Formats: sequence, structure tokens, C-alpha cells
Amino acid sequence: MAIRLDASDSNFETAFRDLLSMKREVSDDVDAVVRDIIEDVKTRGDDALYDYTAKFDRFDARPKGLRISQEEIDAAVAKVDPDVMAALVLARDRIQSHHARQMPKNDTYEDALGVKLGSRWTAVQAVGIYVPGGLAAYPSSVLMNAVPAKVAGVERLVMVVPTPDGTLNPLVLAAAKLAGVDEIYRVGGAQAVAALAYGTDSIAPVYKIVGPGNAFVAAAKRRVFGLVGIDMIAGPSEVLIMADKNNDPDWLAVDLMAQAEHDMAAQSILITNDVDLADATEAAVERVLTTLPKAEIAGASWRDYGAVIIVPDWKVGMMLANRIAPEHLELAMDGASDMVDKVHNAGAIFVGHFTPEAVGDYVGGSNHVLPTARSARFSSGLSTLDFVKRTSVLECNAMNLREIGPAAVTLARQEGLEAHALSVAKRLNMG
Amino acid sequence: MAIRLDASDSNFETAFRDLLSMKREVSDDVDAVVRDIIEDVKTRGDDALYDYTAKFDRFDARPKGLRISQEEIDAAVAKVDPDVMAALVLARDRIQSHHARQMPKNDTYEDALGVKLGSRWTAVQAVGIYVPGGLAAYPSSVLMNAVPAKVAGVERLVMVVPTPDGTLNPLVLAAAKLAGVDEIYRVGGAQAVAALAYGTDSIAPVYKIVGPGNAFVAAAKRRVFGLVGIDMIAGPSEVLIMADKNNDPDWLAVDLMAQAEHDMAAQSILITNDVDLADATEAAVERVLTTLPKAEIAGASWRDYGAVIIVPDWKVGMMLANRIAPEHLELAMDGASDMVDKVHNAGAIFVGHFTPEAVGDYVGGSNHVLPTARSARFSSGLSTLDFVKRTSVLECNAMNLREIGPAAVTLARQEGLEAHALSVAKRLNMG
Repeated sequence: MAIRLDASDSNFETAFRDLLSMKREVSDDVDAVVRDIIEDVKTRGDDALYDYTAKFDRFDARPKGLRISQEEIDAAVAKVDPDVMAALVLARDRIQSHHARQMPKNDTYEDALGVKLGSRWTAVQAVGIYVPGGLAAYPSSVLMNAVPAKVAGVERLVMVVPTPDGTLNPLVLAAAKLAGVDEIYRVGGAQAVAALAYGTDSIAPVYKIVGPGNAFVAAAKRRVFGLVGIDMIAGPSEVLIMADKNNDPDWLAVDLMAQAEHDMAAQSILITNDVDLADATEAAVERVLTTLPKAEIAGASWRDYGAVIIVPDWKVGMMLANRIAPEHLELAMDGASDMVDKVHNAGAIFVGHFTPEAVGDYVGGSNHVLPTARSARFSSGLSTLDFVKRTSVLECNAMNLREIGPAAVTLARQEGLEAHALSVAKRLNMG
Repeated sequence: MAIRLDASDSNFETAFRDLLSMKREVSDDVDAVVRDIIEDVKTRGDDALYDYTAKFDRFDARPKGLRISQEEIDAAVAKVDPDVMAALVLARDRIQSHHARQMPKNDTYEDALGVKLGSRWTAVQAVGIYVPGGLAAYPSSVLMNAVPAKVAGVERLVMVVPTPDGTLNPLVLAAAKLAGVDEIYRVGGAQAVAALAYGTDSIAPVYKIVGPGNAFVAAAKRRVFGLVGIDMIAGPSEVLIMADKNNDPDWLAVDLMAQAEHDMAAQSILITNDVDLADATEAAVERVLTTLPKAEIAGASWRDYGAVIIVPDWKVGMMLANRIAPEHLELAMDGASDMVDKVHNAGAIFVGHFTPEAVGDYVGGSNHVLPTARSARFSSGLSTLDFVKRTSVLECNAMNLREIGPAAVTLARQEGLEAHALSVAKRLNMG
């Protein structure tokens, strides 16, 4: 049973604040280990990668080398069921066309004074994608990270993926192939992140590293941040469902559990203006938990972090939703489309009864890498923009420098920066 | 004297790599101190802020309170010389109109299947701007941080600025007023960052913190990152000037020194295809250093980190420039406009003989907060985009869920996520 709150209760604000400030992060003490691994990879390069792979993934990668060959990739991909391949292609194509719309346009113009200004976008030239091995090896995440990079024009897209016991994951390789990944290496953990950041004989360094990973990978990304760019450090997943009485409790229950089955620290919240729906949905959750393969994980998540909040109306409901700033927001009420404009803080919105969040995880077209832990208040999901950067361009001629330059000289002198002042003044014969 | 490299020398690659990997960061051991300050502000709130202000800024802020009143602001602004005020207004207006063009547009559309997709942009609702006190208190930086935030639609823009000995800086307050800052507090250091992130009785928390600061401020921003958003952590400033023989060495010399006077760890590099120009510019630098108020800082920067690189042609020059990925790039050669497209990695480009970098620091209109330490390979300067975030919107109806849903069910089952599969399948009467 999740906790139940009622926005009309006198102690609601305190209980809601407690919900907001719930710590769901597992705080492993991994940073010291990660620091040593990074130093080792910096110093010993490939040898360190082979040693950590033997230790953590239990196989010797030396005979085949770190790079997964095209033959290995093709052989693995050939094993994928055609139906699954077709589903991956559908997902890839939809992600591609949505993310193509996100590509920013250069903007070059002359202002009223004749000064030329411009914003030029260029792709990050080399990007690394971390793909987890084992249980969390999701081909959909490979697509969500790799397709936008290629849409942006990344020239060299490098994937690293641990292969426990040396076993390749055909689906992950198929997704990488479909997305156009250029190089794939059988290495994971902090050592893979270090290799991407610093380079080794086998793996040339990249400029930016994206993709999900465990606590070691997250700590390594934090450590190399600055030397290379990184994406967000994702926390446990969350969904907030806002639903009125016109809903099938069974649908809502599986939607809540779809989030909960990811992780015992995931969070599923239902906000409703109907107590009967709340009761029916909670009962439906208990039923679905009796059949779900991941019932243990989903049940723990629901018990420890799940919440059902009763609100008097959608005005209060939306205020709470904006304070929660959920990663995923399902709007399952009459007039859902009209509610979209009232959402200020959310990673992604799923509108109406026929848009379960899971459709967005795979084939909606928008990205499933989204801001967690209330960070939708200040950040966005992964997009094509994460793989480009902007260079500003400024061009004055003698005439318009004469118009705007004196103000620069004035301000530079106020700031005590005489060489700044002189670099304008000399060109204006001012001194 | 800066170091001199020649791209035609046999040992050039090694020397150039050394130049690229030069450490220019001052690595203070401040993190433990900062951690304690943040904890103290979290626990004791305003009392902690008053105590640190008494300790570090040498005055008791209790009588007037932490917030700088409108009367204090108006009184300080009244002291600013009208010429300086006019220069600030010119800068503000030019920054405003350039950044207005950067505002992203919502994109809502229906795809071929009838699925509705959207990208909605909304402003970060509350933003804090850190403004350094003392020597580095630049009104131009206030404008560069605050104007884009207001252009983006930030509702609550909060500035924190240390006021050593209680003394207000009229120019900084004038810039804040012109930019439309909503609240200003007389507090600085890690304690100000902690207050913005966690909130105190006097200062309500914000969602994102931007602006430059010393090592303590940078460490505090790193620590609160995740709870709130932050901008980049800026390193020492850099300029790369590419110049042919048709240049006035005196102009180039002051441009190089304009960067060097910022900081002993700043870096100024000249790339030229003309040895005589290199010699003449180095001589001109020595001359300007005899008169510059900040000659000690600029001279140390030039001696320790400055470089002059001789290249056989601009093809080699541009390859080196893209590897350096400078914060500022001046193109001062014939046909400079045509070279812009060959630049892949740079924060900002200043084109031609009449666009010294300093004009961009103040009145060009583009932002002067730019990626340092080679991070232009993967990141961009500050822009309106830093103050908005994107929410994706997805809406399927029963019909188009039937078209794309089965692929989602297939992929969810491959990933072992049965509740994901069910949340689509139940709506399709598939299970």
C-alpha cells in the first residue's frame, strides 16, 4: 500500500513536503574506488581495461581485442527475431523524425547599425555512449541516446558496453547498428568512462559522454566532467498520473507499476479528485502485483515511495504536480489536452487515456531520457540539442565600431580593464 | 616573452600537446570548508548568513537586513555618471535584442499516423545570479547573466553579491536594476550559494544558480548541483588570435593583453603565417606592458601561458585552432569572413580587424559568458536557452495506439518489463 494524502487535510502541507524531500538515491561510497580506476586507466591504458574486464566481467578480452568487430555485430544481429527487428526499426524511425525537428538553425543577421551577428550550431565531433550490461541493458536506451547524436551530425559515435562473461547482447548490438553507432567496445564500468575521457591505444578519446549507468559509472562521469561534457546524472524513475473518475483502474494500476517495476527506488504517484477511483486503483495494483514477474521490485517501490493524493479540484492538483515536477506526467482526465498548458514543470506529458507512458518509452518518437528527482524545474530531457553547440559570431566594421565602441571603452575603464579599453580605443584613434 | 612554436618543426606535435594540456586551474583545497558552510546555512539559515558576512565581509548586516532595499538601490544608482549609465543602457539593449532571437519556439504537430507530438518551452521559474564582490565585480557580467534570464521569462530573478565592509557597488546595482533583477541580497561566498539552493527565512530558494565566482563559490555550485541547476564552472579566460601580415602589431598586442590582464592564469595565443608579424607583435606586447595598469598580471599570464605559433598556411592554422577550441577566437586576416565556416570549436568568433574581443565583452550583443578550457568542443556560451527547459508532449488516440502500440509491447517484453507491456496491451485488448 502506498501512502494516502488528502490535500484538504490540515496537516497536508507537511506531509506533502515530506513526500517531496524523500531521499530515493542510493548513496554508495564508490568515489574513492572510481578515482583509482580512472588513474589506472590514465596510466596503463588498454592493460588496465583488460584487467578490470577480467575482474568485473569475468573474461579475457585480449584474444578478440576490445573492439567488437563488424563480423561479431552482424552475427549477433542475425539472431534477432524479425518481429523484434521490425519493432526496433519502427522505434528508430520515429525517434529520428521527431529529433530531426529539434535541430537548431543557424541565425546570421545584420542589426540596425549594420553590425553582423550570428549563432552557428555545430555537432560535437566525437561522442561516447555508455550502455549498461546485464539487467538494465535496454536496446531502447541505445536508440534514445544514439539516434539524436547521429541526427545532430556527430561524426564519431562510440559505444561502450560491458559483456559479462564475454556474452554479447544481440538486441543492444542491433539497436546500435540501426542507430549508426560507429565503434563498439566490450568494456564497461568506471574504466570504460575513463577510456572514453582520456583515450587509450584502442579507444580514441571523445568530447562528450552520455548514457545511463550504475553508481560507479555515475561517479566516473562526475569525475571526468569538465575534461569532457556529460549528460545529466539520472536518478530513479518517476511517474505522476492525474486521473478523474472516468478511468479504468486496471489501466492506471499497470501504468503505476510500469514505473515501479524499474527499480525499488522508483516512484509512482496518483493524484485524483475521486476517492472511489483511488480505492479501486489501489485494489487493482494489489491484483496486478500477484501476477507481475517483477512484483517484488514493483511492490517495494509502491510500498516505500508510492503515493495517492486526493485533491478537491484540478487547480490544486496542477499546483501540486508543478511542485513535484515529475519526470513523466500522465494526464488521464476529461479535457486532458486543455490541461497541458497549465503544466510548468515536467519532463514529458502523456495526454489522454490512450497514451500510457510506456508508449513513449519505445515508439512515441520523443526521448525517454528525462529529468528525474524534480530537476524538470530547471532541465530538459535528452534531445538533439545535447549533441550540438553554439558559436557566436560578431563582425564590426570601422563605421559601426565607431558607433558602439565608445560605450565599450567607457565600461572597460569603469571595470579597471585598460587593455580592453585600448583594444577598442586604438581602432578608433581614441588613444 | 611567450613561448614560440613553429608548426613546421619536427617536435611541434609534442610541444603543441603540452600547450593543450597545460594546467591553468588553481586547485584550492576548499571543498571541506564549503561543505561545512553549506551544512551550517541549511541548519541555521539567516543566522549563519549573518555570521559568515561578519567574518568574511567584515560588517554586521543585521541592522539593515540581508535584502538590499529599493531605496538603497536607487540611492546608489543615482551616483552613477550619466555617460556610464548610457553605456550600460546601450549594452543592455543590444544584449536584449540579440538574446530575444535565441528564444526557442514551441513545436506541436501531428505526424503521418496522426500521433500528436510537441516540444513546449517554459522558463525556469526562479533563478539566482551570483555576482562577485571586490575586484571582479563587473557590471557587464550582471547584464550578461540577468538580461537573458529576463528575456527567457524568469519570474523571480534573485541576485546575491558580497558587499565588503558593507559598501555597495553602484555600477553593479545599476546593471541589476537595468536588467530587471527582482531581489538583491548583500551576501556572497559559499554561504550565498547555499542560501539560494536551500533557502532561508530571508531568501526563498531558486531552481538554478548562474554566475561567476571564486573557488569557494565554484565548489559550492558543484555541491548543490542536482538539487538546483547550475551553469558551467568557468576557468581562466583565453583568446586565440589568427592574424596575417596585414595587421597593426599594436592592435594585436592590446588584444592579447586584454585577455592577459584578467588573470595570471589567462591565456593569449597568436597564430600567424608571418614571422615578421610575430616578432613585431611580441615587441609591441613588451611596449604596452610598460604602460598597462595591470601589467603585472598581464605580464605573468603572457610569460607563463602565452604562445605564438607560426603556421605554413591557414589550413594548418585552422586545424590547430579547432584543437585548441578557444573561448574567444579573433580572425584578423584577409578573407576572415570566409574562414568562419571552417571553425568547428570556439565559444565566440570575432571577425575582421575592427572586431576586437573587448567589444563583445560589453556591447556586441552576444554573451560574454563562454566555454573555457577547451570545453567549446562540447558546450556553448550562456544564452536564453539556459533559462528555459523543454517538456515533450505525446498524445495517441485509440486508433494510432493500435498502429504503434504492438511494437512497444514487443520491445517491453524483450526488455523484461511486463508492466510496460501490459500498460499498452490492456488498452489494445491484447492482454
